[in-house]
Amino acid sequence: MNYHYSTKVPMSDADPVGDLLKAAANPDIISFAGGLPAPELFPVAQVQEAANQVFQEKGMTALQYGSSQGTPELRKVVLERLSTDDIQADLEQVMISTGSQQVIDLTSKIFLNEGDTVIVEKPTYLCALDVFKSYGANLVSVEMDENGMKMDQLEKALQEHPDAKLLYTIPNFQNPTGRTMSLDRRKKLAQLAAEHDLIVLEDNPYGAVRFEGTPLPAIKSFDTTGHVVYTSTFSKILAPGLRLGWVVAPVELIEKYMVMKQSADLHTDALSQYIVAKFFENNDIEAHIANITALYKERKDLMMEAIQKYFPKTVTYSQPEGGMFIWIEVPGITDTQKLSDRCIKNDVAFVPGEPFYCDEIVPGTFRLNYSSMSPEQIDLGMKRLGEAIDETLAQG
Amino acid sequence: MNYHYSTKVPMSDADPVGDLLKAAANPDIISFAGGLPAPELFPVAQVQEAANQVFQEKGMTALQYGSSQGTPELRKVVLERLSTDDIQADLEQVMISTGSQQVIDLTSKIFLNEGDTVIVEKPTYLCALDVFKSYGANLVSVEMDENGMKMDQLEKALQEHPDAKLLYTIPNFQNPTGRTMSLDRRKKLAQLAAEHDLIVLEDNPYGAVRFEGTPLPAIKSFDTTGHVVYTSTFSKILAPGLRLGWVVAPVELIEKYMVMKQSADLHTDALSQYIVAKFFENNDIEAHIANITALYKERKDLMMEAIQKYFPKTVTYSQPEGGMFIWIEVPGITDTQKLSDRCIKNDVAFVPGEPFYCDEIVPGTFRLNYSSMSPEQIDLGMKRLGEAIDETLAQG
Repeated sequence: MNYHYSTKVPMSDADPVGDLLKAAANPDIISFAGGLPAPELFPVAQVQEAANQVFQEKGMTALQYGSSQGTPELRKVVLERLSTDDIQADLEQVMISTGSQQVIDLTSKIFLNEGDTVIVEKPTYLCALDVFKSYGANLVSVEMDENGMKMDQLEKALQEHPDAKLLYTIPNFQNPTGRTMSLDRRKKLAQLAAEHDLIVLEDNPYGAVRFEGTPLPAIKSFDTTGHVVYTSTFSKILAPGLRLGWVVAPVELIEKYMVMKQSADLHTDALSQYIVAKFFENNDIEAHIANITALYKERKDLMMEAIQKYFPKTVTYSQPEGGMFIWIEVPGITDTQKLSDRCIKNDVAFVPGEPFYCDEIVPGTFRLNYSSMSPEQIDLGMKRLGEAIDETLAQG
Repeated sequence: MNYHYSTKVPMSDADPVGDLLKAAANPDIISFAGGLPAPELFPVAQVQEAANQVFQEKGMTALQYGSSQGTPELRKVVLERLSTDDIQADLEQVMISTGSQQVIDLTSKIFLNEGDTVIVEKPTYLCALDVFKSYGANLVSVEMDENGMKMDQLEKALQEHPDAKLLYTIPNFQNPTGRTMSLDRRKKLAQLAAEHDLIVLEDNPYGAVRFEGTPLPAIKSFDTTGHVVYTSTFSKILAPGLRLGWVVAPVELIEKYMVMKQSADLHTDALSQYIVAKFFENNDIEAHIANITALYKERKDLMMEAIQKYFPKTVTYSQPEGGMFIWIEVPGITDTQKLSDRCIKNDVAFVPGEPFYCDEIVPGTFRLNYSSMSPEQIDLGMKRLGEAIDETLAQG
């Protein structure tokens, strides 16, 4: 049958990243392609214990319909997390979401009409690009360096697009580059947002997993005008399968998020909300995050060493101080997909740079994830990847 | 601050239903306003047992990212449920959603451009109307009688709106009327959908909770052309707090739902999916549904008796064969909000008819829910409601 889809549905059925991730799910393949937390660190026993307490103490409530805003218990946990980012907020300024992905979607629905301009980092999280495209946004990318989005380039973009509605940024250990926005640029971004009446969506999934350098305050902490919306998630510090994120915004905005959330899915899974709140009551989350951080640092260091050992010297790469990703650029490679195909044949996978760009693509770029593979897999996979790069470069 | 919202955000901040439900949450108020399942029937111990097995058998998998389509385990459970509606499908035609509310949202996103016509029952589920409005739909309502949407009226509507894109129906024990679409009309609707190239979204949250009459096959069971999309939920047969629903559609369409689902929230809570699949493995769901059905029938009968006892004889009301709602019409009442306000003062609540209509409103109509109040509360609440009706009518 010939369905008549809306303009929100992508024209092409092609889903190269989906196909790649399916191929990479083959256990014979060493995959640096996904963005999965290390499952061996999931505190299964402690989550189970929390769940049992929830069933005993408030089983009926946890199984009944709940509030669109989320449980007060979990919103209190969020407030405590916010203090690590220097964000002051109260319970009414927080809404629990079905993962932070939902906050990207709801923010778009609340602010974007077809054709509205959204400014993004170049490159950026591909599923955020998909959301913005689905709302018919005009995407404008701004160049980054090791200190995040370049503010002079942003000012230029704002001059060219004075009606820009929304800016999306991942300031800590960005996906896909692993880069962190400097303190000065955070302050400058908050100032530019106020001056240009621009909504900033600050997405901070990785910030808690920092293994080097000094933690920086959130952009939101410099927001005195209500232009910055902050979102984060329990996915990287606890478990992504529960799909629990949150949004922090002025009360007036939170009310709009609640209206849109009610249309989207009524409310977030109540059982999981109660379990996670109970988990935080019972456990020392900072100790747990320290374990995650230590493991990821070890794996990041190994991957960095392997780059030195197996990659040509012309390769450039980011220096993540936390999070899950390293961004690679191989001068001389014009078709990253060809390199990816060759790697899949050699049982190693990564995500080519292309889907992270919304306009001009930088060839020879790709994203490596180090959080979910063992030390042996990292060494062997990077060796294979280095060989594939050499072969691809040799063939021109 | 003066935010510039998209056209998808409702212009008015007024949320009379939200305010009403908040007022009705006061434990002193007897509330027939909500649509809550009876929490005393939630099988808390059995869900807890299932959860413990999930943590033991696949804790890491349940806490990790999962597939946008949902777990094969839970999709298998869905296939078994579908057979009770005479629907043939396979695993690839099913996607798990964050409640069936999400299916209404994703269906709209997939099919609706601004200004597209959506045909709905008059009256219908108010949160579906909210979704369609948020996508800028042109809403057209078609009259119902005790046998559901009138097919001659639908044909007329299709002549007037030949480009109608989507039709939304709740064929079993409809929200808010409690009415059920007859077998003939189901067949006719499937035929009209094919003839007019109209997508039908068949929403069946209540169908399993039938206490009288003969179960009817789904509209989807008469669909030979791929025009009917079917959605249902675990909310009414197990527990709504877990936010687990599903959609059944041709594979080509399911692929679009997955693309949109990925943008919306990546995937549905994996832990809850595994728990529910395990619950179904361990327990006799038909016996559990029989318990729900018996209790709701008892409460429905009590409410029907109370209508006879306490309401004026001029009142008309629907005859639900299942589900959770009775629809009341009181001739002579022109301002149902005034009646509602009077009731709240007398500690009893219902939902006035207005928000269930998208165009012309039938005055004096309202929805009563009987599933979540005790027999004593039903008798006392209906007595108060009858008195408020008498007083309101007396004042003209």
